[in-house]
Formats: sequence, structure tokens, C-alpha cells
Amino acid sequence: MKPWRVIGFDADDTLWHNETIFENVHERYRALLSSYHGAAIVDRTLFATEIRNLELYGYGVKGFTLSAIETAIELTQGKIGADEIRTLIELGREMLDHPVVLLDGVVDTLELLARSHRLLVITKGDLRDQERKLAKSGLGALFQHVEILSEKDQASYASILRRHDIKPAEFLMVGNSLKSDILPVLALGGGGVHVPYHLTWGHERTTEQPNAPGRFFEIGNLRELPGLL
Amino acid sequence: MKPWRVIGFDADDTLWHNETIFENVHERYRALLSSYHGAAIVDRTLFATEIRNLELYGYGVKGFTLSAIETAIELTQGKIGADEIRTLIELGREMLDHPVVLLDGVVDTLELLARSHRLLVITKGDLRDQERKLAKSGLGALFQHVEILSEKDQASYASILRRHDIKPAEFLMVGNSLKSDILPVLALGGGGVHVPYHLTWGHERTTEQPNAPGRFFEIGNLRELPGLL
Repeated sequence: MKPWRVIGFDADDTLWHNETIFENVHERYRALLSSYHGAAIVDRTLFATEIRNLELYGYGVKGFTLSAIETAIELTQGKIGADEIRTLIELGREMLDHPVVLLDGVVDTLELLARSHRLLVITKGDLRDQERKLAKSGLGALFQHVEILSEKDQASYASILRRHDIKPAEFLMVGNSLKSDILPVLALGGGGVHVPYHLTWGHERTTEQPNAPGRFFEIGNLRELPGLL
Repeated sequence: MKPWRVIGFDADDTLWHNETIFENVHERYRALLSSYHGAAIVDRTLFATEIRNLELYGYGVKGFTLSAIETAIELTQGKIGADEIRTLIELGREMLDHPVVLLDGVVDTLELLARSHRLLVITKGDLRDQERKLAKSGLGALFQHVEILSEKDQASYASILRRHDIKPAEFLMVGNSLKSDILPVLALGGGGVHVPYHLTWGHERTTEQPNAPGRFFEIGNLRELPGLL
């Protein structure tokens, strides 16, 4: 295998659980609106609002909360009460305040790899929220740099590699999203290790399959990563 | 004067108008709630909500919008209607979508200084919003680096200087907030140029006065900056 010198890690659903928190909130959101609409319509409308607002809000909990309030007003034709909107604001705050629960194998794997490789975190979302999660995770000292981006695409990865003087051929990105973590890095000539999470947000789904023999790998648990290197 | 090699610029209310946009929104917010409370109570309660939420939300328009909705529910004891909450969401979106209006003298000054100095932008707020404003400003190419922070304090400036290999003694920070732009940089041994804006958000006010002879300056317009150097 190639001599990858630098390994980038996605954070949400790669190092710690995140989509499970959203899924729990989605359940409570459906329950809140269940007297107006069935779950499928609630899910579909909320997702459409999120995507419509993505360009303006970016990723993260605050934009999600605003989209959830907007959708609730739309789906109830303005009949939703102020108490219920307060509940949505509370749900958002709970998400921001949620404990960080690491995925299995994360600590052991990172501690092992930090001895032989430069490790980075490359994540997207709300600036303060991602910084807070990293602080709560206790993993900060294992990473040489933390990059919080508004979008993870080919241009943003290229800019990080340039800024840190990393050649694409020596860079390996590890994450749960083919679309955000793997495909843009493969396109630049780097390597990618996909570690699927059991839930994937609709916006991160892609039908495109990586085609980069010797540079793309899929593993079931982060513990398998050192064996790959 | 000292040989400052690197100049950092705050963005909101230093390079482009920002607080005027908030002030306009505050006016419309007071009008929306005027049948419930007078302007002073509305302002005070909204400010208290913003400060209470700051740790969790961080700076920026999305957190402001959530705090404005929360405050409106509180101040009307839940009587506020869904239509009015929709109006608040719209106000937030307008702020994010607002054109960027540069302050007088910005383009000339930056173009002149970029020939002789390394220029940085150091700002705080929502990641995507600040990136979008910088893109709209057309100033991007004049800056070597853009740093968007969740907080501007001594530790975050120290980290930027370290990361870019800049000695505090060769770094000059220019901005409208004594608290966020000037005092932390002076404390590190750098220089500061205060360019007051005619409006200052309550949270940025400070009674502390800079005391750093030869390292602290105040000017009325960015055009005076090259003359200082």
C-alpha cells in the first residue's frame, strides 16, 4: 500500500455519533406534528426546507432548528402554537448541548496512528459546535490541525492540502460519507477509506461509486484502519 | 514606528457595514412587538437572551434569529402568532442575503497596503456567512489568509500567529472593537489600530482603555492607516 503520511478524519459519524441524535430529534418532531400530518410528509417537507436553506444557512444545528420551525409553520398552516415552537428551540439547544459519544475503536486507533502519522480533523458544520464537540471528545491533542469547513468538496480539500503543504498522493481521508469524505479526495489523487455509519442523512447520499483501485478501501470499523496501512 | 510586517483586519464594521443591518432589524423587531412592550424592554430582553445563548450558539445571524424568536415568545407570553415568527425567520434570511457595502476608503487602502505588507482577515461569526460576505466584497485576493473564529481572544490570536509563523511584535491588528480586535493583540505584544464605527453592539463594549504607547493608535477612517505605517 501507498505510504500515506497524513490521515484526515471526518468527525460526525466517523469519530463520534451524530446522525443518531438527529434521528432522535426527527422522531420527536414527527410526534409534535402527528396531529397534522403523517411521518412521511413531515420528513419530506423538512428535508426540502433544509435543502432549500442550505446555501444560506450552511450545515449544522442552528440552521436545522430554523428549518424545523419554518417547516412546522408551513405544515400546520400557521396553527402551530408558540409553546410548540419553544419546544423546537429547546430541541435545538439539546442537540448543541448533547454529550459526545465516541464510536467504538476510535481512541485506540487514533492513539496508535498518531505515533506514525500526521493526523487532521476535517469536518463541516457550525464553527462553535464542532469546536465544542472536539473539546468534549478529549481527542484534540492527537490532531495536528483541525479544519472546520462550510463545504467539503474538491476545492476545499485542495486548499487544505496546499495550506499544509501536503501532496495529494500522501494524503488519506477517512470518513462515513462517500460524497463529502471520499469522492472529492480521490478526484484530487489522494486515498479514501470509507467507514459506513448505520444512518446517512439524505443530502450525503450518492449513487456514484468510487473507482480508484489501490486508493479506495472500505472497512466496517475504525479498528481495521491500522491493518490497512 | 515599528516595522509591522503583517496586518490583520477585522471584517464586520471595519471593512463593511454590519451593525447598521442589525440596527435596522432591531427597529422592525421593536415595531413587531410594540403592541406588547415598549422599545426599551424589547431591546433589553433580546440582548439578555442573546448573551444567555452566546456560549451555545456563538456569534452570527442564525443564533440571533433563534434568540429573537425565543424572546418574542417570552415577551408575548406565547401570544405571538406563527405569521410573526415566520416574519422573524424572513428577517434572518434577509440579513444573510444582504448586499455587502464596503466602508469608505477600504479598497484604496487595502490595495495600497497589499503591495508592502501581508494582509489577513480575522473575523468571527457564522462560517458560511462570513465566507459569503468576503466573496461578495470582492476583496478576497488582497488577503493572504482568512481566519474565521468562534471567539476573538488572546488565545485565538496567539494560535493564529503561531500557525502562520508571525511574531507578535510584527503584527498589527485593525478593527472597530477594542474588546475583540485591539486589547487581546496588545496583551500579546502586538500593535492595534482602532477605527471606531458609529454603532457598537452592547457585547463589544468595554470600559478598559488600551495602554500601550507606541503600539496603540486610533484613526477615524481606514484611509489614515498607510500614513501611520
